[in-house]
Amino acid sequence: MRILGIDPGLATMGYGVLDIVDRQPRLVTAGAVITTPDMRLFERLKKIHDDVSDLLTLYKPDDIVFEELFFARNVTTALTVGAARGSALSACAAFSDQIYEYTPMQIKQGVVGYGKADKHQIQHMTKLMLKLPDIIRPDDAADAVAAALTHYNTGPMKSQFLMK
Amino acid sequence: MRILGIDPGLATMGYGVLDIVDRQPRLVTAGAVITTPDMRLFERLKKIHDDVSDLLTLYKPDDIVFEELFFARNVTTALTVGAARGSALSACAAFSDQIYEYTPMQIKQGVVGYGKADKHQIQHMTKLMLKLPDIIRPDDAADAVAAALTHYNTGPMKSQFLMK
Repeated sequence: MRILGIDPGLATMGYGVLDIVDRQPRLVTAGAVITTPDMRLFERLKKIHDDVSDLLTLYKPDDIVFEELFFARNVTTALTVGAARGSALSACAAFSDQIYEYTPMQIKQGVVGYGKADKHQIQHMTKLMLKLPDIIRPDDAADAVAAALTHYNTGPMKSQFLMK
Repeated sequence: MRILGIDPGLATMGYGVLDIVDRQPRLVTAGAVITTPDMRLFERLKKIHDDVSDLLTLYKPDDIVFEELFFARNVTTALTVGAARGSALSACAAFSDQIYEYTPMQIKQGVVGYGKADKHQIQHMTKLMLKLPDIIRPDDAADAVAAALTHYNTGPMKSQFLMK
């Protein structure tokens, strides 16, 4: 069983891949798709679409997990962050219909057991659960791995988190 | 010279294709990509990506013109409408880098000559300019054609409307 976690964003889109072997999660890879403000918007969206497609081809996840976006500073920002999410989602939808979504609070609950846990607690628990020598960087990659871990921890309840 | 106009949206994404022949715009096709709320979000985004890709393959436009989104009722709506736009834009970016964007006010100015023109004036002028027997329906298709007409009317100034 392999899980791809994605923390969507325009400048930095975090990702992480977990394998579940003998009921233990094992980190396969984690990183971020980066785009920069000197690129035109559609070039950034194309890069996100292409890079996510490459990850899917390379790692062939069984389940794909998004951290749900429901906050943005304002409508203008939401239109742009939403575009990045849409570009990644349409790449994933071409690959699979096993796409799940968890809110930031569900991820905190799922990893630390406490819905108001802070970033450091998440990173620390992620490091412990995966027996890593250090915390995962950048933050967006750590968030993506935490989303994938939450999906693993959710176990038989997971179908209720299928994206609507 | 062929122009594809797109009025982005999740439930209805209007499109229209114009040919410019002997300096006269001629309507090739107009319609809408429809998705329904019973589909899951990523299925809707995949359909938009696929249908826009099909339009590009079929009509091979020289220039692609989007009506700019900068209004949404709230952040939640903006995240979803933004996702639809991102899905369409990443399909277009795989095809071309000649992607332009006009605000609703620029389109009203471009078609009617008055930035506060209403929907009926836009539809009426679009019908006259294209010598059509009737107005274009649905509204989103008419808006997409109006965006393409604006691009044609903008002429040598058009490079300033290249999407950033």
